[in-house]
Amino acid sequence: MQERIGVIGLGLMGRPMAQNLLRAGFAVTVCNRSRAAVELLAAAGATPAATPRELAAQSDVVITMLPDAPDVEQVVCGANGVLAGARPGMLLIDMSTIAPHSAQQIAVRAAALGVACLDAPVSGGSEGAAAATLSIMVGGAAADLARARPILSALGSTITHCGDHGAGQTVKACNQVAVALHIAALSEAMLLGAQSGVDPAIVVQVLSGGLAQSRFMDLRGPAMARGEFTPGGRARFHHKDLGIALQLARANGAVLPGTALVEQLFAALIARGDGDLDHSALLTVLQALAGR
Amino acid sequence: MQERIGVIGLGLMGRPMAQNLLRAGFAVTVCNRSRAAVELLAAAGATPAATPRELAAQSDVVITMLPDAPDVEQVVCGANGVLAGARPGMLLIDMSTIAPHSAQQIAVRAAALGVACLDAPVSGGSEGAAAATLSIMVGGAAADLARARPILSALGSTITHCGDHGAGQTVKACNQVAVALHIAALSEAMLLGAQSGVDPAIVVQVLSGGLAQSRFMDLRGPAMARGEFTPGGRARFHHKDLGIALQLARANGAVLPGTALVEQLFAALIARGDGDLDHSALLTVLQALAGR
Repeated sequence: MQERIGVIGLGLMGRPMAQNLLRAGFAVTVCNRSRAAVELLAAAGATPAATPRELAAQSDVVITMLPDAPDVEQVVCGANGVLAGARPGMLLIDMSTIAPHSAQQIAVRAAALGVACLDAPVSGGSEGAAAATLSIMVGGAAADLARARPILSALGSTITHCGDHGAGQTVKACNQVAVALHIAALSEAMLLGAQSGVDPAIVVQVLSGGLAQSRFMDLRGPAMARGEFTPGGRARFHHKDLGIALQLARANGAVLPGTALVEQLFAALIARGDGDLDHSALLTVLQALAGR
Repeated sequence: MQERIGVIGLGLMGRPMAQNLLRAGFAVTVCNRSRAAVELLAAAGATPAATPRELAAQSDVVITMLPDAPDVEQVVCGANGVLAGARPGMLLIDMSTIAPHSAQQIAVRAAALGVACLDAPVSGGSEGAAAATLSIMVGGAAADLARARPILSALGSTITHCGDHGAGQTVKACNQVAVALHIAALSEAMLLGAQSGVDPAIVVQVLSGGLAQSRFMDLRGPAMARGEFTPGGRARFHHKDLGIALQLARANGAVLPGTALVEQLFAALIARGDGDLDHSALLTVLQALAGR
């Protein structure tokens, strides 16, 4: 019999992911802090649950997709949390982006109750979530990933086993480092062109045809050239992710000068009150520095 | 009748470009400081010339592909230079990467002798030069580009008119800014992964399947993961290009904090004696900072 799935966290990412699971024919129970998203999913065929505990009691596999580690810890380990409603044999897949050591701690607490854990953060943004083309980075036991694979296949097109608990989060941190620097790359190139009298749209067109191409440029460059910054991926979440990367670097002796710089530029974007814009709005910080 | 072409500068880029012009059926005269490359091209059907002046006297269109602005100025404006051998109606296409204001100065000096000029720097590296898939960024008059197009089409697959004299060099500077930051992006992601126990090859594999993909990663990531840094694009040339970008930013009021940082990391790579490695060897500077 097919596994019953619970999904906790129905934001920009979790909502289309739950919808894709329903579309794939899974029985899905949902739980979310705000009720509006729950009602939307209920109308599409999901069963609402009042608390993560109640949701866990009705599920074989629980997926969490939450903003940050404190949210995951409360939803999983709190009094009305997932582990309070769990039975041995349950599988918990945390698809949030949190620090690798937080993922490891949660896996230890779950294992004590006979609950298996995977960290499975994603790349691809809300577009990838809607199209079920996410890249999913998995840490944990291979057997648990084998069990999760039919479910994850309804959410993403690339599923990679990166190593033991936390390794999925480590690779996600690497991913966020690369994307952040790609945003800076595109922003500085567009600003240099604009200040020197070349239309940013021409800069994007030429660069995407050569060695300077990036997927971020393909997806966001034309909108950036028009000054449009609808999320996509929110700047304040990317700033949080760079905090995780720098903390991981500090713990493991990596040196990331570019990441540290871009982390500060995101801090400036948030200080301007623009943390809920798309992360490509980093361009506007450089524009402001140049007096535009 | 087809235009007779002269090519000056037969290095990592100029040599395969001259070969592609011969393959396309053009009559090609060549000139180079070192004789070995001249003999190689002569064996393939090119006519050797002793000086740029002699070459210009036998050519309708002269292409220069040289390391830096002082080389271009000497080869074009020197006593035995191109302009000394030029006739009115000749077209000079400088495909070197130099500062936009140097390109503008050369265009003014050429125009005084009735010689038309295009700045037409390229992106795509030695692989792109060999495969004739370069992206060519052109500054100058549209009519001169129309005349050059059949020739440039034998060298690249994307030809973009960016604006007046110098605009091709401006967009090339933007290109080099973006590529430099993409190299830093990949290097920091790979170092963070490696220090945290994840194989850099897995990092490259996962990132290239998602939002963090870049063409540089596709082309160079696997070799970087193996510690191989055969050029490709030499680090010392990319360092020179970032100097042009920062000078242009200073002249036009752009602010490029990421570029300034990576320019210094390239300086460190050159200080280690590794300026003739591929620019992807930037990774080794970060590895050294992390004590690897």
